[in-house]
Amino acid sequence: MADSLNCDLKSLSPLQLFERVTEQGEKVRALKAGKAPKDEIDAAVRMLLSLKLSYKTTTGQDYQAGLPPKDLVLINNGTTKEEDEDLVDPWNVQTSNAKGVDYDKLIVRFGSSKIDTDLINRIERATGQKPHHFLRRGIFFSHRDMDQILDAYENKKSFYLYTGRGPSSQAMHVGHLIPFMFTKWLQEVFDVPLVIQLTDDEKYLWKDMTVEKAYEYAKENAKDIIACGFDINKTFIFSDLDYLGTSPGFYKNIVKVQKHVTFNQVKGIFGFTDSDCIGKISFPAIQAAPSFSSSFPQIFNGKESIQCLIPCAIDQDPYFRMTRDVAPRIGQPKPALLHSVFFPALQGAQTKMSASDPNSSIFLTDTPKQIKTKINKHAFSGGRDTIEEHRKYGGNCDVDVSFMYLTFFLEDDDRLEQLKQAYTSGELLTGELKKVLIETMQPLIAAHQERRKQVTDEVVKQFMTPRKLAFEF
Amino acid sequence: MADSLNCDLKSLSPLQLFERVTEQGEKVRALKAGKAPKDEIDAAVRMLLSLKLSYKTTTGQDYQAGLPPKDLVLINNGTTKEEDEDLVDPWNVQTSNAKGVDYDKLIVRFGSSKIDTDLINRIERATGQKPHHFLRRGIFFSHRDMDQILDAYENKKSFYLYTGRGPSSQAMHVGHLIPFMFTKWLQEVFDVPLVIQLTDDEKYLWKDMTVEKAYEYAKENAKDIIACGFDINKTFIFSDLDYLGTSPGFYKNIVKVQKHVTFNQVKGIFGFTDSDCIGKISFPAIQAAPSFSSSFPQIFNGKESIQCLIPCAIDQDPYFRMTRDVAPRIGQPKPALLHSVFFPALQGAQTKMSASDPNSSIFLTDTPKQIKTKINKHAFSGGRDTIEEHRKYGGNCDVDVSFMYLTFFLEDDDRLEQLKQAYTSGELLTGELKKVLIETMQPLIAAHQERRKQVTDEVVKQFMTPRKLAFEF
Repeated sequence: MADSLNCDLKSLSPLQLFERVTEQGEKVRALKAGKAPKDEIDAAVRMLLSLKLSYKTTTGQDYQAGLPPKDLVLINNGTTKEEDEDLVDPWNVQTSNAKGVDYDKLIVRFGSSKIDTDLINRIERATGQKPHHFLRRGIFFSHRDMDQILDAYENKKSFYLYTGRGPSSQAMHVGHLIPFMFTKWLQEVFDVPLVIQLTDDEKYLWKDMTVEKAYEYAKENAKDIIACGFDINKTFIFSDLDYLGTSPGFYKNIVKVQKHVTFNQVKGIFGFTDSDCIGKISFPAIQAAPSFSSSFPQIFNGKESIQCLIPCAIDQDPYFRMTRDVAPRIGQPKPALLHSVFFPALQGAQTKMSASDPNSSIFLTDTPKQIKTKINKHAFSGGRDTIEEHRKYGGNCDVDVSFMYLTFFLEDDDRLEQLKQAYTSGELLTGELKKVLIETMQPLIAAHQERRKQVTDEVVKQFMTPRKLAFEF
Repeated sequence: MADSLNCDLKSLSPLQLFERVTEQGEKVRALKAGKAPKDEIDAAVRMLLSLKLSYKTTTGQDYQAGLPPKDLVLINNGTTKEEDEDLVDPWNVQTSNAKGVDYDKLIVRFGSSKIDTDLINRIERATGQKPHHFLRRGIFFSHRDMDQILDAYENKKSFYLYTGRGPSSQAMHVGHLIPFMFTKWLQEVFDVPLVIQLTDDEKYLWKDMTVEKAYEYAKENAKDIIACGFDINKTFIFSDLDYLGTSPGFYKNIVKVQKHVTFNQVKGIFGFTDSDCIGKISFPAIQAAPSFSSSFPQIFNGKESIQCLIPCAIDQDPYFRMTRDVAPRIGQPKPALLHSVFFPALQGAQTKMSASDPNSSIFLTDTPKQIKTKINKHAFSGGRDTIEEHRKYGGNCDVDVSFMYLTFFLEDDDRLEQLKQAYTSGELLTGELKKVLIETMQPLIAAHQERRKQVTDEVVKQFMTPRKLAFEF
């Protein structure tokens, strides 16, 4: 009996073991509270000790109530988030700090690794290219297993990129471009295939929206993504509603993930409740499955073992912590990740922007005049109340949204440093800093709009057609 | 506030309303137990009364704790099943009665309708054919909305048939053929399209089985199904693992069902728990979706409104109660149903047979000798202990498994009645009755095996290829 128990336990993931210990602990407490017979309580306690031992053997950590194993810290569960912690999950980002989320703390909580100078230098050596300013400036700040991607790459073993977007509306803002701009750079310097998931099924499940509308948004959003300049020979864009029904390989991976994740687990990771629809509950498997190359037999020739690298904003990490937990149990490699910070709202860095509030950011459809008005009117300033005070004490770049936006979009390092010094010293006024941002964003958006015009429905259809890409596997 | 609440409530199904009332009742009790402030308790009570009123308006019934709305009685939930009730759900059938499950009680509990003489006569009039002996003998005994199918059929409005099988192993027994034999008859007399779902994904999720093995069983089982004599021009057989990944129409219906069913509901209907994997939790939507014609755009030309009729054993009813609850909310017609009794194990009618116990029934691969031995050795007898007693008191057909099997497979009504009288009077001995069954089953199985040999892999592939059938829509 004990042997077969141990044998069973070996097949469990750290998170599953954690849950078994927790459940057993509750059982023991219930038995004691209910004054159950002594031998029954003793048996339950023996089981609890055995489970705790297995947990320690598997994770190398002592079991601590409420503290799940490190690689899988729960984040959306009210009971595990401490009072002063930022709230970060796929649907919410909240912080009380005007500088934005405390990313160093988030790395510790999520159990990921910081992208440090060593790693950035290594990427430079491996690719022979100057690192993207998103790396140099800490905009992509955290990773999982990027060193393994580089180890393999240096040994001529390739990988593929996977990123995505939830098409919640037709309107995309500049913040939505961040992962795509960076992914485009990664694709170019590493020369690897890229798959882009449009989770229109997710949006249908979460929002008050028809299936048809969600699919329409997916195709519209694809135009803005394509306008970032992706190579049609190296990139496959897919809508879930469409591709899931055209790829048995994809569905097979989804059902494999669904077999290895319990409701208890998604409850812990995503905060789902009994009142949530079963579509939401099983959706995480659909975001997980593109991490496995066999979901794209047309690209990878049916090969199962191609390593995947996922650039995304850190709020998407819960999906991939779950994916990494499942991967070895279904015989697949764990996807590696590169995490970005959140793009701040014009009103300040306390929250992520909302596509439903047109004043919360600069949209890809804004006219030069709208851009000017929005920045002048809504961009939260780190400057002083009066010109005199500003000249005397200087502005605060840490909370100034115009300056934050420039760190994303002004590529010239020297110019950015100059602006920082001038603003901090009080030499540069808020209005002048905003002018620099306006002059940076206007041509950038205009150029995007020009490229988007070239993206016909036919081009979208080509990008979204399952097909072989310009790589041999 | 109250208005918007009422507005919200109108969009809820009877079962959702039932759950809301139950939850609110628990909340009121908790508030009272916790000695909450009076105004808080009063507000909760007002909400409870408002919910009960909505429930009554919607269902026409008063809310009764533990008694869900009639069309949706919970069956797999320990708290609602009474002590002496039979246990019937998609995974378990148990009764303490040697005659088998009490089907009259089941009709009341499930809220379905009895197939009575009037309905059978109506089917005969509509089709101009003698009703199948499964109808004449009460083997298909219960239905939902079959009268509506006939109303529409009499007005030249067609429908389609949907049935299925979970391919849990290569071995199928004669009991597995019952729904297919009857479906074949329905297809012939009504001349309508038929879709047959092989839930290989379900078997992968529930059993210790690989995806590949489940798909292999699906294709093997398809051979036995085809050997029943289905018309290739009127029948589409599909494996979920395969078809889900080749039909966006099917996936879209799945995700629509998944949006409209909560975990609370599948917990109530199927008895799922928090420890179940998310694949099981969302699976009911996959068995529901073929009830909607838009899951088969290749057959129905994309039409959404074709009525569906599902012949199945009554243990599958929970899936379709759920489907019927969801259908109007996603703008689809409710599927109609015809329910069969369970096929008894050789050992007796207390349980359904198991494909994993070779002695529990006659398998489609059995040799004439195996059939003879199994029936002689294992078929539970309703005869007396000694020949003398048997001659004096007679045998009991109600519990005699050989006689039960003959009601399924001996088509000649007069012969069956003769046997019944002779056995009941003691004139016919158990061994003689068994001999009749052996002589009935041997040629039947041999003929099946002969037909199955003709079913090549190529024929299976043709049946399983999504395509237009010989009907115009």
